Amino acid sequence: MIIALKQDASDDEIARFTAVLEQRGVTVHVSRGTSQTVLGLVGDTSGFDSEAIGAHHLVAKVIRVQEPYKRANRLFHPEDTRISVQSGTEHQIIGGGMLGIIAGPCSVESEDQIIAVAKAVKAAGASFLRGGVFKPRTSPYSFQGMGCEGMNLLAAAKKETALPLVSELMEIHQLEVFDEIDIIQVGARNMQNYNLLKELGKCSKPILLKRGLASTVTELLMAAEYIMAGGNEQVILCERGIRTFENFSRNTLDISVVPWLKQKTHLPVIVDPSHATGIASLVPAAAKAAIAAGADGLIIEVHNDPESALCDGEQSLTPEAFSDLMGTLKKYAEMEGKQF
Amino acid sequence: MIIALKQDASDDEIARFTAVLEQRGVTVHVSRGTSQTVLGLVGDTSGFDSEAIGAHHLVAKVIRVQEPYKRANRLFHPEDTRISVQSGTEHQIIGGGMLGIIAGPCSVESEDQIIAVAKAVKAAGASFLRGGVFKPRTSPYSFQGMGCEGMNLLAAAKKETALPLVSELMEIHQLEVFDEIDIIQVGARNMQNYNLLKELGKCSKPILLKRGLASTVTELLMAAEYIMAGGNEQVILCERGIRTFENFSRNTLDISVVPWLKQKTHLPVIVDPSHATGIASLVPAAAKAAIAAGADGLIIEVHNDPESALCDGEQSLTPEAFSDLMGTLKKYAEMEGKQF
Amino acid sequence: MIIALKQDASDDEIARFTAVLEQRGVTVHVSRGTSQTVLGLVGDTSGFDSEAIGAHHLVAKVIRVQEPYKRANRLFHPEDTRISVQSGTEHQIIGGGMLGIIAGPCSVESEDQIIAVAKAVKAAGASFLRGGVFKPRTSPYSFQGMGCEGMNLLAAAKKETALPLVSELMEIHQLEVFDEIDIIQVGARNMQNYNLLKELGKCSKPILLKRGLASTVTELLMAAEYIMAGGNEQVILCERGIRTFENFSRNTLDISVVPWLKQKTHLPVIVDPSHATGIASLVPAAAKAAIAAGADGLIIEVHNDPESALCDGEQSLTPEAFSDLMGTLKKYAEMEGKQF
Amino acid sequence: MIIALKQDASDDEIARFTAVLEQRGVTVHVSRGTSQTVLGLVGDTSGFDSEAIGAHHLVAKVIRVQEPYKRANRLFHPEDTRISVQSGTEHQIIGGGMLGIIAGPCSVESEDQIIAVAKAVKAAGASFLRGGVFKPRTSPYSFQGMGCEGMNLLAAAKKETALPLVSELMEIHQLEVFDEIDIIQVGARNMQNYNLLKELGKCSKPILLKRGLASTVTELLMAAEYIMAGGNEQVILCERGIRTFENFSRNTLDISVVPWLKQKTHLPVIVDPSHATGIASLVPAAAKAAIAAGADGLIIEVHNDPESALCDGEQSLTPEAFSDLMGTLKKYAEMEGKQF
Repeated sequence: MIIALKQDASDDEIARFTAVLEQRGVTVHVSRGTSQTVLGLVGDTSGFDSEAIGAHHLVAKVIRVQEPYKRANRLFHPEDTRISVQSGTEHQIIGGGMLGIIAGPCSVESEDQIIAVAKAVKAAGASFLRGGVFKPRTSPYSFQGMGCEGMNLLAAAKKETALPLVSELMEIHQLEVFDEIDIIQVGARNMQNYNLLKELGKCSKPILLKRGLASTVTELLMAAEYIMAGGNEQVILCERGIRTFENFSRNTLDISVVPWLKQKTHLPVIVDPSHATGIASLVPAAAKAAIAAGADGLIIEVHNDPESALCDGEQSLTPEAFSDLMGTLKKYAEMEGKQF
Repeated sequence: MIIALKQDASDDEIARFTAVLEQRGVTVHVSRGTSQTVLGLVGDTSGFDSEAIGAHHLVAKVIRVQEPYKRANRLFHPEDTRISVQSGTEHQIIGGGMLGIIAGPCSVESEDQIIAVAKAVKAAGASFLRGGVFKPRTSPYSFQGMGCEGMNLLAAAKKETALPLVSELMEIHQLEVFDEIDIIQVGARNMQNYNLLKELGKCSKPILLKRGLASTVTELLMAAEYIMAGGNEQVILCERGIRTFENFSRNTLDISVVPWLKQKTHLPVIVDPSHATGIASLVPAAAKAAIAAGADGLIIEVHNDPESALCDGEQSLTPEAFSDLMGTLKKYAEMEGKQF
Repeated sequence: MIIALKQDASDDEIARFTAVLEQRGVTVHVSRGTSQTVLGLVGDTSGFDSEAIGAHHLVAKVIRVQEPYKRANRLFHPEDTRISVQSGTEHQIIGGGMLGIIAGPCSVESEDQIIAVAKAVKAAGASFLRGGVFKPRTSPYSFQGMGCEGMNLLAAAKKETALPLVSELMEIHQLEVFDEIDIIQVGARNMQNYNLLKELGKCSKPILLKRGLASTVTELLMAAEYIMAGGNEQVILCERGIRTFENFSRNTLDISVVPWLKQKTHLPVIVDPSHATGIASLVPAAAKAAIAAGADGLIIEVHNDPESALCDGEQSLTPEAFSDLMGTLKKYAEMEGKQF
Repeated sequence: MIIALKQDASDDEIARFTAVLEQRGVTVHVSRGTSQTVLGLVGDTSGFDSEAIGAHHLVAKVIRVQEPYKRANRLFHPEDTRISVQSGTEHQIIGGGMLGIIAGPCSVESEDQIIAVAKAVKAAGASFLRGGVFKPRTSPYSFQGMGCEGMNLLAAAKKETALPLVSELMEIHQLEVFDEIDIIQVGARNMQNYNLLKELGKCSKPILLKRGLASTVTELLMAAEYIMAGGNEQVILCERGIRTFENFSRNTLDISVVPWLKQKTHLPVIVDPSHATGIASLVPAAAKAAIAAGADGLIIEVHNDPESALCDGEQSLTPEAFSDLMGTLKKYAEMEGKQF
C-alpha cells in the first residue's frame, strides 16, 4: 500500500502517523520529495481499510498495490482449482480444463416439467441440472417458487437422470432441505449478504457465487474470500451481466471479466448467458463468446415450454435450441483445449 | 397493461391468447389496426409479470400503465404517512411536514464514543441517534462491528440522551437483540433480500429501507411493498446514492428521486448525504439540497474523531460541523414549510 | 505523480526507466522497499499521460497526485471567476456571488413564440434568454432547428427585452451568425469535440460548457482547459445530468458535483434542471436543490405552450410555473448569500 | 406507435388529439377500455418524436413499436451489406461472410514505425492498416497526432504493403487530406456530431462508425441513419465498449450487441477489443469472443514498441502477439463459416 501525503504535512506529523501505521504490523518506508512525501507500506495490508486511512487529515491519496484478496488470489495458488462433484455414478468436474454445463429451468414448476427438461438437457450433453425452488422476485405478488415441494421434484429428476443438481439458496436455514443439491447457488442479490457467505464458508458443498448486478469484480472476489476464509475453498464464480445504461438486453454481459478473472484467481469462472442477455435469441452467441473468452462453464436456462414458463420464459432456450447449441459448443471447447 | 402483438399474429392465435389472459381475471380489449393488433388489459394486473408475457411468441411489446405497487402507491392513499416514534419522553415524527434528522457514527466503537456523539448530536438538534453494531463490510478482514455488545452501548446512550435509536439489521434472528432499537434499518445490500423483507412485514417497528446501489426507484417501491404486504406499513424510504461511472464521489446522489417519490408514494423519503457523497466536505451541500428537493429527513454520519473512526471516517462530520449544518438546515426547513 | 513498480524490477531497469522520465523534465525520487520500489515524480507532470506510462513493463500502478488541469484549477487562481456580459443597458454577472438565471425555449420556433417567452421570463426575473436554432437531434427525421432564420428572431427578442442571449453552437463556421449571441453554449454531445473547443479558445465571448452525458467531472475540467489554453478564460461549467441505469428521469442529476467543482475550480458552475430531469414537475425541486448545493446559476427551459413544442415539451415549464419558481429561488439565493 | 391516454381524458379531448395526429399523415385507431383509452397509430411514424408526444397533457405513455431507423433496418433490406474496398491490386470485403481485420497503431509516429507495423500486420494476415493522425485527446497538453505529415506516412505504408487504409476524421475540412484513406473512421466522441455525419452522407467512401461510450445501440443505428439518409449506405458499425461503473477494464465490451445488431440491421458489425478492454493481455480473449458472437471483423491496435507508444501503449499488441492471435482467429472464422 502506498500513501501519498498532503504537501503541508510536517515532519512531526509524519513521524506520528508512521508510528500508528507500524503499530498495525507493517514496515513503513518514507520517501521525501521536495513537494510531496510518500509512504510505502511493506507487509500484509489486506486488513487495512483504504477509506479509513484516506480519512486521515495528512493523506492525499491511498493506493493499494497488493490485492485485498488472499485465498482467491492466483499469486498464492497458481494452479487452477477443480470443483469435483460425485452424484451416483456421475462424476463431474468444473475448472482446470473441464467445462461444466449447467442447464435447466429458472423455476421448478411440476414433476412432468422438471423431468422432461432434465432428460432433454442430459441427452444434449449437460453435466448438471439447475432449477430454482425459492425464487427472489421483484414483486411480492409474483410466483415465489414451489419451495420444499420443488426440492422433492428436483430429487426425482436426479434419480431419473443421475444429473447432479444446482439450486439457489436464499437464506441459511434452507440448508435443511438442500441435502440432494450438489452445488449451492448464491444469487446476484445475495452476493454481499455477508452472514450468508460466512455460513456457507462452513459448508462442505461447492458454492456457485453469482456476481451482483452492480458489483465490481474485486467485490466478487472479496465475496468469494468471505466463503473461503470460513474454510470452504470450493467456489465457482459466475458472470451474469451487470446493470448499465443500455437496456436492449436485460443486463450487459461483461465478457472481458472472464480473461481478467482467469489471470487473477485460480477459481473456476462460468458465465450465465441467459440472465446476461434476457433474450433467448441472443443466448447462443453469448454462450459461444463465453467459451471463446476462456470460461470454465455455462449456466443456461432451458424450458420445455418457454411461453408458459412462470418466470424468465423470454430468455429460456427450448430443448431443441439447447441441443443445437451444445453441438457447436463442443467444437469451441475443443478449440480452447477443453472438454465436457 | 397494454400488449402490442407481432404483425403476423392470426385471428385464431389472438383469440386463444386473449382467452388465456382473461382466465387470469382481466378483461381484454382487442384493437385491430391494419398492421398491428393491440390488446388493452383492464383490471388488476399487479400480479402479471411483464417479462413472462413478453416471452409469448405473439407478443411484440408489453407496456405497463398501472404501477406494480399498490400499498405504497399515493393514488390509493393520498395523505402523507407519518412515522411516529415514542421513546421515553421523546416523541418524534417523520413525514407529513415533520423532518426527522438521524445522526451518529457509522459504527458503535466504545461507550465513551457513542455517548459523546449522542450528546453532541442531541445538543445540535438531531431527533434520532444512529449507530451500527453489525457491519456489512466488503472484506472479511475488516472490522465487522461490535455485535451484541454494541447494542448495550446504544441502550446506554439512549438512557443518557432519550434519543430514539436507528440501527441496521442484517438478518432476521438479530431481532432478538433489537429491543431498544426504535427504527430498524435495512441496508442497501439487503434491499432485495426478500425473506428479510417478508419477516420485517410482521414486525411492529418502523423500517428505514435504503435504496440498493443499483436499484431503480420502482424496485425500491416494490421492496417497500414486500414489507407492507406483510402488514407493516411504517416504511421510510432512503435515497443514499447509486453506483454510476462517476467516481469522484462514493456514489451518485440521485436527488431527483426525492420529488418523484413524493409524487408516487405517501411514504416518507429521507436522504443519506454521507454515503451518497462519501466525502465530509460535500455533506453539507448535499444535505441542504435534499431538504430543498423535498426530503422528509436526513441520516448523517457524525463522529467525534473521524480520523480514528473504524469505518467511514472519510465521510463523517465532526460534531462541530454537524452543529453548524443544523443551524442552516433549520432555515431551509422553514422555507419548505417543515419543522424538526 | 507516483509510479509503483513491479516487484521483479531490477536495479538496472529502474535506473534506465528513471533516466527516461528525467529527460522529460521532472525529478525522480526513488524509494526502495523490501518488496516494492516506488518512484515519486516532482515537477510539472500535466503533460504526462498516465496510460502511456502504465504501458511500460516495469510499471504496476500510476497515481496522479497533481490534478491534470492548470488554468481551471482553484489552487492557482483562488478567487471566483466572474463572467460579465453587457447587452445594451443590461449588465449581467455570473459567478462570485451573482446568480445567472438563463431561461427560454429549447428551440426558437416563431417570432411570436420567442418574443412571448422572452417577455415572460424577463418579467419573472431571468437574466438571460436561451433559444436553440441549430438542434442536435437523435433522428435525422426530426425537426433540426430554424437555423439562421432563428437567429434573426432571437435578435428581435433581444431588441424587445434587452435580455442577453445564450445559444448553442454546433460547428465553428456557425460563429458567423452568432454576432448577437452573448454566451456561446457547447452542448453535451460536443463537450469532447476538441477542435471546436480549440477554436472557441480564440473567441472573446463567454462559453457555457455542458458536461457530456457520460463524462467525468475531471474530463469536464479538461474540456474547459482546452478552451482556456487557447486564451479564453471565460468558461461557465454546466451540470445537466449524466446517463445511468436509472431511467425514471431523462438523466441523473449529479448534484454533488456542484460543491466538488466549487472546491476544485474558480469557474462558475450552473445547473440545467430541465435536461437533468426531463420532467417539468421535477424541475422546481431540482432547481432549488442546485441553488442549495451552491450553484452559480440555472438554465431552465420555458415554453409558452409546452404541449405544442417542437422539442423537449415534456420538460419545459410554462411561464406561470417559471414565475412561481423564481419567487422561491430568490429566497434560496438570499439564504446562500447570493443575488440575481 | 401506441399511445396510452390518461384515465381522465374526455371524448372531446381525444377527438381533438386524434385529429392533430392524423394531420401528420397517420391513421389512428382508437381503442376504448373501461378505464383506459389506447391509440394505435398506423403509417410511417419514423418522423414522430416520442418525447414531444409524451408532453401532451392527455398522454400517459408512448410506445414505439416500429423501429425509428429505416435505411439501416434489416426488415427493409434483408441481405447483408458488403463493404467492398479496392486498393491497388488488393480487394477487400467486410460483411456477408467476409471478415475484415483492421490493424495498426493508435497513432502514426514516424515513417519507420508505420512501415514496420504495416509489414508486420500484413504478414500476419490483416486486411487493412489503421493509424491515427488527428488524435482526440482528453488533455490539451498531450500529444495531438502528427496531422497532415502523418497522412504522407500512411500513404507510404500503403504503397509499400498495398494495404488499404483506415483513419479517423475529426472534422469535415480534414477530408481534403483523406485522399489515400479508404475507410473513414468516425470516433466514439463524434458519433452524435450530426453535422459531421450529414457531410459524410455525401461522401463516396465507406464510413466506420464507432459507438459512443454512453450511446445506446438504437442511437448508434440512428447515427448510421444520418449518414445513410445523405446517400452513403456504406456504413460499418463498431462496438468499442461502453462506460459503466466497472473500471478494471477501460470500457465494458457489450458483446451481446453483436448478435442483436446482426438481427436488426444489414450493416456489417465489427468490434474493437483494444479500446473495449484497454489491456493488451485481455485483447485476444475479447477478439475471439467477438468472432464467436458473430462479428464481421475486428479493429486491433498493434505497435512495434508498445512501451514507447505515444498513446494507448497499454492496450497495443506486439506484432508477435498479433500474429499468434491471427492464427487462432482463422480457426474461429472457419467455425463460424466466415473467411478473411
